[in-house]
Amino acid sequence: MDETATYPKHDRSTIRRLRDRAKYDFATVHAIFSAASIVHVSFLPTDPSMDPFPTILPMLGAMGNFANPTADAATEPLDFYIHGHASSRLMKLPGSELTGDHPEGLPVCVAATLLDGIKLALTPFNHSCNYRSAVLHGYANLVTDEDEKNWAMHVVTDDVVPDRWNNSRVPPTKAESQSTSVLRITIVSASAKVNTGPPGDDRRDLQDDDVTSKVWVGVLPVWEHIGPPIESKTNKVTSVPRYLSSWMQERNSSREEYALKVASEKI
Amino acid sequence: MDETATYPKHDRSTIRRLRDRAKYDFATVHAIFSAASIVHVSFLPTDPSMDPFPTILPMLGAMGNFANPTADAATEPLDFYIHGHASSRLMKLPGSELTGDHPEGLPVCVAATLLDGIKLALTPFNHSCNYRSAVLHGYANLVTDEDEKNWAMHVVTDDVVPDRWNNSRVPPTKAESQSTSVLRITIVSASAKVNTGPPGDDRRDLQDDDVTSKVWVGVLPVWEHIGPPIESKTNKVTSVPRYLSSWMQERNSSREEYALKVASEKI
Repeated sequence: MDETATYPKHDRSTIRRLRDRAKYDFATVHAIFSAASIVHVSFLPTDPSMDPFPTILPMLGAMGNFANPTADAATEPLDFYIHGHASSRLMKLPGSELTGDHPEGLPVCVAATLLDGIKLALTPFNHSCNYRSAVLHGYANLVTDEDEKNWAMHVVTDDVVPDRWNNSRVPPTKAESQSTSVLRITIVSASAKVNTGPPGDDRRDLQDDDVTSKVWVGVLPVWEHIGPPIESKTNKVTSVPRYLSSWMQERNSSREEYALKVASEKI
Repeated sequence: MDETATYPKHDRSTIRRLRDRAKYDFATVHAIFSAASIVHVSFLPTDPSMDPFPTILPMLGAMGNFANPTADAATEPLDFYIHGHASSRLMKLPGSELTGDHPEGLPVCVAATLLDGIKLALTPFNHSCNYRSAVLHGYANLVTDEDEKNWAMHVVTDDVVPDRWNNSRVPPTKAESQSTSVLRITIVSASAKVNTGPPGDDRRDLQDDDVTSKVWVGVLPVWEHIGPPIESKTNKVTSVPRYLSSWMQERNSSREEYALKVASEKI
């Protein structure tokens, strides 16, 4: 593997348990962030002595490299972009006095998780899940360059539904753009954990006929399914456009295929 | 509404933007945690001056009240339980010197999010999602009472697949129990945010025939689907037991029904 295309193993991101499931390469980490519909963003309390709790917010976001927009996600470094209403709490934190002693930006952790199956073993202790999960740590900063901001809004929109940006009313009005903020997260460490295959059981349970005759063992495959598009009352486009229907079809079948494959096969 | 059955509005959990989507009642918060397959748990760095980043871990967990196991989730207070390998980092944090100045336990934030649909409006600015999300803040402590620990392992297992505990090889062996740790999170604040219905558009876009004739508007309903059970090679139970098949069928159809309903209807 190209060593330049992996995240450095920092103490905070090194996976210690079940290390065979750990991955640090750009390709795996970036693919999981790209596949997850929703990510969870965590940040520290403003004053831990007053309120000790971190906060988690569910967000939409996308990987991208503004300076090199055609960067290959498998081999080239990327930033992570999230957007939100300009008046929302998270968007106002970077650069404010609330970030404390971090001129690099607001320290955040972002997690992307896909559940691919429920592994039912003979005993609850050996139950597990098939999943793909990735976590990144980085510094979030407000994007102030108009070109980068417009590009990032485009990238985040198309990360949810490919080609939607150019198939909707764009560019944003000045008021729309002003009321949207974009944060660029510069990644300093990241890791992924992937589990696949059937459940594992202990020999003693497998050899116990009383147990094996009663307990069903296998995987319940799980995937995020997109159902038939439901048009709004205001919709005037009579048939669902192909960029939507073909993407949905392809996404549903590839997710189903993956969940079924890893239900029986360790990859 | 019964005021005792809502979480107090703490500054950290008060939703300021889009307040009509905010909920604080036990019934809504507990139902979202119960419906989410995976939750995300966040905790602070041990020494923020050395490493400023919070951590997020994807986990399985369940709501419950050990002192009152038949508590009504809609009206009675519950704790949140998570479990993990005894040697994992998170399980070793509470009570250790790493928790710092918090005799109440390890301060954590837990998020549960369900994506119910992608709302496609005329302009990216008005794009949104249908979702149910809940966040709780609380103090995590290691469960040391054997009865509570066994009960919690049962509750967490059945939260993933109802009735699985009693339909698998139980009780755990001493070695299994010793290598599993359970954390009880005492909730100090919580809130939920729920969005439903078709996308909203600005009048100016709706009145622009050039725009409405080109842009499809509506909702792509989304739900977590469980596919056909894939038995392990070691499985000796010839047909899928009813507690599994009927639960899967009911879960799939109720999730589909909800996603389709909120695609066209604000509830």
